[in-house]
Amino acid sequence: MELQVVEQIAEVRQAVNGARQRGSRIGFVPTMGALHSGHVSLMEEARRDCEFVVVSIFVNPTQFGPKEDLNKYPRPFENDVALCQGAGVSLIFHPQPVTIYPPGFKTRVEVTGLSSVWEGAFRPEHFCGVTTVVMKLLNIVQADVTYFGRKDFQQQLIIKQMCQDLDWPYAIQTCATIRDPDGLAKSSRNVYLSPSERQSGLSLSRALFHVRDQIQSGNRDVLQLQQAMRQILDGTPGVIVDYAAIINSDTLAAATEYQPALTAAIAVRVGATRLIDNIELP
Amino acid sequence: MELQVVEQIAEVRQAVNGARQRGSRIGFVPTMGALHSGHVSLMEEARRDCEFVVVSIFVNPTQFGPKEDLNKYPRPFENDVALCQGAGVSLIFHPQPVTIYPPGFKTRVEVTGLSSVWEGAFRPEHFCGVTTVVMKLLNIVQADVTYFGRKDFQQQLIIKQMCQDLDWPYAIQTCATIRDPDGLAKSSRNVYLSPSERQSGLSLSRALFHVRDQIQSGNRDVLQLQQAMRQILDGTPGVIVDYAAIINSDTLAAATEYQPALTAAIAVRVGATRLIDNIELP
Repeated sequence: MELQVVEQIAEVRQAVNGARQRGSRIGFVPTMGALHSGHVSLMEEARRDCEFVVVSIFVNPTQFGPKEDLNKYPRPFENDVALCQGAGVSLIFHPQPVTIYPPGFKTRVEVTGLSSVWEGAFRPEHFCGVTTVVMKLLNIVQADVTYFGRKDFQQQLIIKQMCQDLDWPYAIQTCATIRDPDGLAKSSRNVYLSPSERQSGLSLSRALFHVRDQIQSGNRDVLQLQQAMRQILDGTPGVIVDYAAIINSDTLAAATEYQPALTAAIAVRVGATRLIDNIELP
Repeated sequence: MELQVVEQIAEVRQAVNGARQRGSRIGFVPTMGALHSGHVSLMEEARRDCEFVVVSIFVNPTQFGPKEDLNKYPRPFENDVALCQGAGVSLIFHPQPVTIYPPGFKTRVEVTGLSSVWEGAFRPEHFCGVTTVVMKLLNIVQADVTYFGRKDFQQQLIIKQMCQDLDWPYAIQTCATIRDPDGLAKSSRNVYLSPSERQSGLSLSRALFHVRDQIQSGNRDVLQLQQAMRQILDGTPGVIVDYAAIINSDTLAAATEYQPALTAAIAVRVGATRLIDNIELP
């Protein structure tokens, strides 16, 4: 089937309704474009479950802070289309900002508590921007399953909470983080990194892997492990730590002792670039 | 078809999916119970368009202020069921509060601007409570058309704005206010009124009809008409006015001159009871 690229909501609905009437299961991968192998893995996962896969490409202005990188965020649209084509995507929804936020737009969807800690503490309006646009995109596509990457750990948790709280009738699925061979988690923002900044950025996965390996070897001293993670980051030139924490994977509360369902999560700045990463602990 | 009464979300979904598979169009009337002929007119409107009509009966705690009438709000459930039966309703959704707000519930849906004026100025969290629960109920029922009464004018406008902003894929329909023969707008709260309070309450429709009649007779002096409305209310013993205004029906902005799409809207207190009413101006 040929890949279709549309800008209008009505075109998405028409294509999705058509596919559904043909008996297809609908999968959806919302993105901001600048697609990389992390996104492709979501599309492939969607293709395994669904005959008709929709990808949205929309750099959502409301999830960027006033001093953040909205304007310089990469928008390599032709390349994105080619990646979708290769991954067997059926439809790209590539709306103009005015289509998503027409004049007079007034609605906010917010998940309290979970949205104000960690990333939310450093990016105050970020998650409200995310949840509002995701609720819109979910309603536009009405996919049977929508796929998010675990790399944005707090985001996928907040979106799942929103969908549960608002009784969204379809499924949300989280997929594994994809890494480069050197360990760096795939991110559209990695293109900002100079070679030496990229070297500094490797400290995130190094710190996370260290904690995971330590826990696997029987170390249960969560506070000491958190300190070790912090030391790895602080000992790396050019890295400024926003947070490096071991947290409960469901509540996001900082853990003071070992418990089931822990995640180690890190956010740092390397030069002008903010990097986040996380790992599920055994 | 027999009227079914259910408490669980999964039961609603199963019944609605069954009806849809049988080719039925689904109509939905969300209510807080204490049903009266205003609600019945919504159900009848739904029955004209839809083979399968769902009514929800849920006294939503989050839309009551801390000093409001949540606990004494009337809950004549048996009578409500009989009214639904008589109106040809197929399914009553009558959830427990814990079903709607399970432990850990965290999400807020808010329509900014429209929610903070008029009713919102007197009931600060009211509309956020309304929009959040309505978004949930819409997702639970997934009706082709959901019906609201014009008597809650600001509410239906805010809900329409929410649905438009969030790309809710189905229709929202507003139906006319139903009045008693003496002019009092039907409301579940009218049962609170003593006979003399009810007499005072008639000042609302009297003031609204006066403005409508004046405009129909060619009077275009909006500010003078607003004053006249206020005089009728202020001249009625036992009435304390919260607001009495002529407003733009789309933006809710107070009108200073005649324009298309005006609404006259009133809120007063009569004893311990708060009454609202409104009328579309010609």
